[in-house]
Amino acid sequence: MDIDIFFLGTSSGVPTVERNVPSILIRRKGEHIYFDFGEGTQRQIFRLGLGFSKKMKIFISHLHGDHIFGLLPLMQTLTLFKRRYPLEIYGPVKLESFLKYNMELLDIEPTFEIVFKPIYHNTILDFGEYYIKVIRNLHGGLSYSFRIEEKGRPGRFNADKATKDGVPKEYWSILARGEDVKVGDKIYCSKDYVIPPPIRGRSIVYSGDTMAFDGLIELARDADVLISEATFTSELKDRSIETMHMTALEAAKIAREAGVKILVLTHFSARYNDLTNHLIEARKIFPATFIAKDLDVLTIPYVTP
Amino acid sequence: MDIDIFFLGTSSGVPTVERNVPSILIRRKGEHIYFDFGEGTQRQIFRLGLGFSKKMKIFISHLHGDHIFGLLPLMQTLTLFKRRYPLEIYGPVKLESFLKYNMELLDIEPTFEIVFKPIYHNTILDFGEYYIKVIRNLHGGLSYSFRIEEKGRPGRFNADKATKDGVPKEYWSILARGEDVKVGDKIYCSKDYVIPPPIRGRSIVYSGDTMAFDGLIELARDADVLISEATFTSELKDRSIETMHMTALEAAKIAREAGVKILVLTHFSARYNDLTNHLIEARKIFPATFIAKDLDVLTIPYVTP
Repeated sequence: MDIDIFFLGTSSGVPTVERNVPSILIRRKGEHIYFDFGEGTQRQIFRLGLGFSKKMKIFISHLHGDHIFGLLPLMQTLTLFKRRYPLEIYGPVKLESFLKYNMELLDIEPTFEIVFKPIYHNTILDFGEYYIKVIRNLHGGLSYSFRIEEKGRPGRFNADKATKDGVPKEYWSILARGEDVKVGDKIYCSKDYVIPPPIRGRSIVYSGDTMAFDGLIELARDADVLISEATFTSELKDRSIETMHMTALEAAKIAREAGVKILVLTHFSARYNDLTNHLIEARKIFPATFIAKDLDVLTIPYVTP
Repeated sequence: MDIDIFFLGTSSGVPTVERNVPSILIRRKGEHIYFDFGEGTQRQIFRLGLGFSKKMKIFISHLHGDHIFGLLPLMQTLTLFKRRYPLEIYGPVKLESFLKYNMELLDIEPTFEIVFKPIYHNTILDFGEYYIKVIRNLHGGLSYSFRIEEKGRPGRFNADKATKDGVPKEYWSILARGEDVKVGDKIYCSKDYVIPPPIRGRSIVYSGDTMAFDGLIELARDADVLISEATFTSELKDRSIETMHMTALEAAKIAREAGVKILVLTHFSARYNDLTNHLIEARKIFPATFIAKDLDVLTIPYVTP
């Protein structure tokens, strides 16, 4: 199934008429995985004609207001909607106090379970079919970058052999991902039905807010998509250092070093109406660069191997 | 000078694609006076091409999230913009804890002074040229309705006499509002230059969120504009009682009893796409009823008496 990446907000710090503050939604097999949740994010979701998913996870990169101020309104809305499914929230440890204190003060009594999990540097969260790697980055306070990657498969599935051996079709995807299957007395071994070399899952890296640093190159290694902040162009390099952000040029260099397939720039300073210069300076270094606009969707198709 | 009323958000509880959560801006002589400040309000301000005023006051009717979640983002934005002028915030006493706790937790160090003043039932706040009356209403928790009214003048200004007596023009407006003027040894008495009867200032009443109650009729007596919540139509009367809100019909009855000039309905439940029924049921009782849309502007002109 396709993975869809929705860019819900592509401004930094302050919204503009054209751009809301940061949030990215990754939709995979009906699950909604958010990265950051700035003010007004729920309205962006409605604008896309999307609702809330039974399975929802929210990752917060750091505790700057423009990345989190949509959370409390979301808690209120999900409560008004009488949500019954748990909501998983991952973020810097202080985020839990923020949620708890405010919901108590404002008498928001959620109709659903909030499962909060603090995140730490250099950890891997295993979610079954995919994992999310978290590393600390270079921004004010505790701030993180993320890589979401599907688990790989051991090789190309040998459909001819499976047909010949009469393996029921419902078991093909299980064998394909490397697990053996027992049907009655008969055991089908995955290794008999896959042809190496192993196939990697799809991967998306999100920089969060950060200065350029080598760890981000490693995190983004060979990713399908690198979503990187590019708050400034090189003309404002000094300002980018002062505020611990990146220029479009730096993001492009990371994309090239990491060997990613596509670079999407986002998190633009509200001072820019026109982002042509971001694109020009990045594409000189890394031609497969794109500029995210609010409500853009980038699809990573599922390719049957 | 005209008074402009900007409807920044006309939904209740949850935003929709067409309607943001509550906020109203009253602009008078360059001062910006907000009533409620829901999530996404700053972006609505930008959409109108407005910025922030040196003189700004914010009144919060009650501590439901949809009326206050734009405040913290505003604090962050005004700090990023390096505001130097004080910001006055009036609201239920717990609002101060909400602001203080969150700004400390999130390291928002405002570049401006926040002057917080708690509001109480049946009080009048005197702001020189106008006053704001606050009464408690009938909603969950501490919740308030407001009347903003310009101070009246003792009568029509007698420009002919002022010209004949050689009163310098710069003093006319002072005499007109009822104050005496001393120029050198000469004293001009206001009563000699105004012709009764007294002239009332312009007045706007904002219901906040509430059920219908008699005190609101008194508060709205003879107002130029009553801005009233009308969350439901009479068809959902039971639901309006359950949630302590009003129907369009009830708002219209209050407008008629109070003898207001214009009734503007707002704060519509997100379930309504079409508000024709609100309008129909209100206009049967009170013909001068209007439905607020987001980003509408209603101007109350200044009429020289």
